[in-house]
Amino acid sequence: MTKHHPELSQLFHALADPTRRSILSRLAERPARVTELSGPTGLRLPTVMRHLTVLEEAGLIVTAKDGRVRTCALVPEALAPARAWLDEQRALWEGRLDRLEALALQAMRESGE
Amino acid sequence: MTKHHPELSQLFHALADPTRRSILSRLAERPARVTELSGPTGLRLPTVMRHLTVLEEAGLIVTAKDGRVRTCALVPEALAPARAWLDEQRALWEGRLDRLEALALQAMRESGE
Repeated sequence: MTKHHPELSQLFHALADPTRRSILSRLAERPARVTELSGPTGLRLPTVMRHLTVLEEAGLIVTAKDGRVRTCALVPEALAPARAWLDEQRALWEGRLDRLEALALQAMRESGE
Repeated sequence: MTKHHPELSQLFHALADPTRRSILSRLAERPARVTELSGPTGLRLPTVMRHLTVLEEAGLIVTAKDGRVRTCALVPEALAPARAWLDEQRALWEGRLDRLEALALQAMRESGE
């Protein structure tokens, strides 16, 4: 029960903040300069920078600096492990429902004998 | 950009820990007593209880006490908002790829004229 997936923990941690989720949605449309992510949204630059660091460390974005301008871009495939984990949970649960149905069918058959 | 989904934040926070993810996988198979979740796994009871509180507050599990025995069960539909958010991100990204393809096609057509 203690199998560790540090990347998955870091990924879900990065998604556990509304500002970071908003930044990802914004970057899904197109890459953006850091100033574009702070200016119009009322977020202070240090706040945005702090969130960008968390997103970059989780592998969800990449940033590149050209002179004084830092641009951020989404790494969309980085969300795949989170999606895979959720799919796995659904499969476990559905497997359980299948087993319960099979048991119920068996019980019906035996009571009909 | 500051639209808040407190439940979604709480949900992703609950998933950002390997022990809590393991507990969910275990409960996807069948409900369990708290002692079943701590005993064989080498986790101390207070540690398990702390994680169960986070999972319960996020709506991912329910617990019920019968005498001195507390049993935990998964609430599988509670993962749906996380899945929906990931699907939404994929749609945003695929929408962007579609737009880029449309622009490329248009550019090809115009250069062919």
